Amino acid sequence: MNGAESLVSTLIDQNVDICFANPGTSEMHFLAALDNPKMKSVLCLFEGVATGAADGWYRMKETPASTLLHLGPGLANGLANIHNAKRASSGMVNIVGEHSMSHLKYDPPLASDIEGLARPLSHWVRRADSASSIAWDTASAVAAANAHPGQISTLILPGNTSWEEAAPTHALPQVKHEKRVPDTGRIENVANILKSGEPALIVLANKATKGRALELAGKVSASCKCRLGTQFFTARIERGAGRVPLERIPYAVPQAIEFLKGFKHIITVETNEPTAFFSYPDKPSLLKDPSTNVHCLVEKDEDSELAFEMLLEAIGGQDAAPILQERVETPAPTGELIPLSIAHALAHSIPENAIVIDESLTTGRETMGHTVGARPHDLINNLGGSIGYATPLSIGAALACPDRRVVCMVGDGSAMYTIQSLWTQAREGLNITTIIFANNKYAILKAEYANMGAGTPGEQAMAMIDIDRPTINWVSMANSMGVSARSVNTAEDFTKAMLDSFNEPGPSLIEVQL
Amino acid sequence: MNGAESLVSTLIDQNVDICFANPGTSEMHFLAALDNPKMKSVLCLFEGVATGAADGWYRMKETPASTLLHLGPGLANGLANIHNAKRASSGMVNIVGEHSMSHLKYDPPLASDIEGLARPLSHWVRRADSASSIAWDTASAVAAANAHPGQISTLILPGNTSWEEAAPTHALPQVKHEKRVPDTGRIENVANILKSGEPALIVLANKATKGRALELAGKVSASCKCRLGTQFFTARIERGAGRVPLERIPYAVPQAIEFLKGFKHIITVETNEPTAFFSYPDKPSLLKDPSTNVHCLVEKDEDSELAFEMLLEAIGGQDAAPILQERVETPAPTGELIPLSIAHALAHSIPENAIVIDESLTTGRETMGHTVGARPHDLINNLGGSIGYATPLSIGAALACPDRRVVCMVGDGSAMYTIQSLWTQAREGLNITTIIFANNKYAILKAEYANMGAGTPGEQAMAMIDIDRPTINWVSMANSMGVSARSVNTAEDFTKAMLDSFNEPGPSLIEVQL
Repeated sequence: MNGAESLVSTLIDQNVDICFANPGTSEMHFLAALDNPKMKSVLCLFEGVATGAADGWYRMKETPASTLLHLGPGLANGLANIHNAKRASSGMVNIVGEHSMSHLKYDPPLASDIEGLARPLSHWVRRADSASSIAWDTASAVAAANAHPGQISTLILPGNTSWEEAAPTHALPQVKHEKRVPDTGRIENVANILKSGEPALIVLANKATKGRALELAGKVSASCKCRLGTQFFTARIERGAGRVPLERIPYAVPQAIEFLKGFKHIITVETNEPTAFFSYPDKPSLLKDPSTNVHCLVEKDEDSELAFEMLLEAIGGQDAAPILQERVETPAPTGELIPLSIAHALAHSIPENAIVIDESLTTGRETMGHTVGARPHDLINNLGGSIGYATPLSIGAALACPDRRVVCMVGDGSAMYTIQSLWTQAREGLNITTIIFANNKYAILKAEYANMGAGTPGEQAMAMIDIDRPTINWVSMANSMGVSARSVNTAEDFTKAMLDSFNEPGPSLIEVQL
Repeated sequence: MNGAESLVSTLIDQNVDICFANPGTSEMHFLAALDNPKMKSVLCLFEGVATGAADGWYRMKETPASTLLHLGPGLANGLANIHNAKRASSGMVNIVGEHSMSHLKYDPPLASDIEGLARPLSHWVRRADSASSIAWDTASAVAAANAHPGQISTLILPGNTSWEEAAPTHALPQVKHEKRVPDTGRIENVANILKSGEPALIVLANKATKGRALELAGKVSASCKCRLGTQFFTARIERGAGRVPLERIPYAVPQAIEFLKGFKHIITVETNEPTAFFSYPDKPSLLKDPSTNVHCLVEKDEDSELAFEMLLEAIGGQDAAPILQERVETPAPTGELIPLSIAHALAHSIPENAIVIDESLTTGRETMGHTVGARPHDLINNLGGSIGYATPLSIGAALACPDRRVVCMVGDGSAMYTIQSLWTQAREGLNITTIIFANNKYAILKAEYANMGAGTPGEQAMAMIDIDRPTINWVSMANSMGVSARSVNTAEDFTKAMLDSFNEPGPSLIEVQL
């Protein structure tokens, strides 16, 4: 057994059984080792697709995937989606190939400071110096990725570590991913606030927006009449009919301030207090009213389920029935494609148990509120703000949940960042419906230009925001990579295109002409 | 004048008058400032396109371009082509937007350690803390980029530095880019070696493979019967009929060893001794025969023209006539598309003064040797080894030299990395002919798998090297971004498609079916 085989076999033993890969020459032994029936390998034609797919896998499975990246530049290409994954607390094990140690001293063309590139966005970085200790290194990387909440591990694999003979492995580091027990003082404080009846908003995030934690939050809300909300972006929310509904703090600073101003208390669960996404010359960074008090209920590495159980006991709300979202039957819309008809088409069409990945930016901001009474679904958002995340995430989510339909809503500007995703979707025959909101501009920037007080864009500045000239033909683009596609410009056609795509296995793309 | 305007006006004053941009919210004031008639702004739909285009600009102009990148992830997306530019000693000024200083402490979603991401691949990094000193910071960044040889400068621009009022600027740092004078002892040593008549190879690189330095090298060769060569990859070579020809050290280790074994001396000019691109378990890293002596004639920051003048004086070769490459008239080939017919089609068709950018990898290795007698042209290669460089570089080269045709030869796997380049080529109407060698595989890896001694790839490993299933439809792909395209499968059609494209202004793409 060589080092690469030891690495792959340790990954499998530690329950990391998928690898999103874009290999190069220095990873040939690793590639050979991937040829293992217990490991699924998925080829991505750009590393940003691989790291985004690993994030999508974790968001649905809550266990890390691995990636295979080619040296420093391969890692660099994957960093933007590693940033997004890090912000979403997704665990991930990146294997980055490296020259053999004896070759590095000659400073060959592809050499770079891989540790230096990895550190700013990884929680854990190690260079695997020897085939005999690679199993230990790998198990440590997986353990770090499996921490609560998830972490980014980057393991650098020199060629000689890959091809040299590995020692038989014995004991490996124990994988511990215990959640920390919440602080009883904080629980008691929040219980007293809630019992006071003063207006309070509990802001949930990360692992608390789904499953039992969400149900328990619903009981708290029902007992104490406090409201439940989320930041504008959340890693994954269980949402729609029959779920505990969460109010979304708006993205735009004035609206967010308006939304928050009536609360005497903001209580945070696995998140920070509400903060503006960007800074503006004349707007505050913190969104709460200055008189509002912020209290932490659950730190990011603590156990939200347990915290809500303790809180329910403290307020005597164990038997409260959470108020659940009712199903809102939305008729299929007709006529022009405007934000409202798009919203109604989605609310009408989203299938039961769909995974909705939202990178629709301006279009989605106005529409997603109308889908809260749709059939139950999961909603995934981009916490890191680096665009080009939705199409790769769809790959990982679809592989994690092959029986569910992934609905990927993405703006045209964002879709172009990692458009190579469509090819992997076609190769793997994934059940993904990609909806491109084609407004031919970075519409968000048109609004932000004014928000920034930068005046009216001149012709040259405007040309840097418009992405017309040429307009992108999304049907040709999808077809070029083996994905069937259609373009729609009425609400009827949009609805029909969605329903058709949900009934056909494999990927398809819908261009929504705006 | 605000900080952003001060920055842009300083760039222009320092002769940096083009910006390859992908802006975000935090760069709106910079975008407004770009609206200056003396600054050309070019929108790129992915940051790897922007940094690659800046590299292409420098390779042809030898003055740096600027890029505008959105925060840490925007920089990360540009790093792979920054790596390639750094290895090619291309100067570049990256402007990276950042949150305002007062906002950073809240750790907003897009915050990351931008300095940490920039340092591994930049020669010069600075955070511009104040609008009143931004002009000085900018001039320093440009001076660093303009060093000999060129350098990577990264200037981080917080929002408040951008929008706050700038002080009037007075004295700015002097831009010095003097080349270092070569060491006379080294010149004398090499002169003695050459006069001895022992078999010697001078390996030229970087600024020495063109213009007067190349002519002078030709005189040295003619006087002393030494041979002139290059590494397999060189930043830019003036090549073809009427130029001093340079022999190319092969890529594959056994062939490179064979090529080098007869030389008693290897003399380096702005480069290191020949080294394998990758390391292999059973092959050496250094390619020379163990009995060969390596001598440095010109260090990377020294003046090659001056060195060759000094050397010619020392050997008494000032009046020698360099042996120039003869024009080889190659008839248009017919029949199947195989490496030889592809080579003949290129040799027949490359127009006078073309800029040939080569990322053809396996296909090009077998063909480029046959084009040495083509009409005079510039040949650009990838020194950094990170794929996805040719299509972006074409943009910068075409903008730098609008009267010349750019011929971009690229493998399908490489082209997919930064395929968004085609959109900018269409928008700017650039005279670029992109030739896709579509073998539907990472062909280089098939060879390397065996070279590495990894055995025969199993089915799953092979699937990670093939990029068929689905095959990419390159005509659809190009059309989707506004670039006209055709697919060819005979030598006649390939030749005709090239000649047609050279006669039509604007970009086009040719898919060569292999």
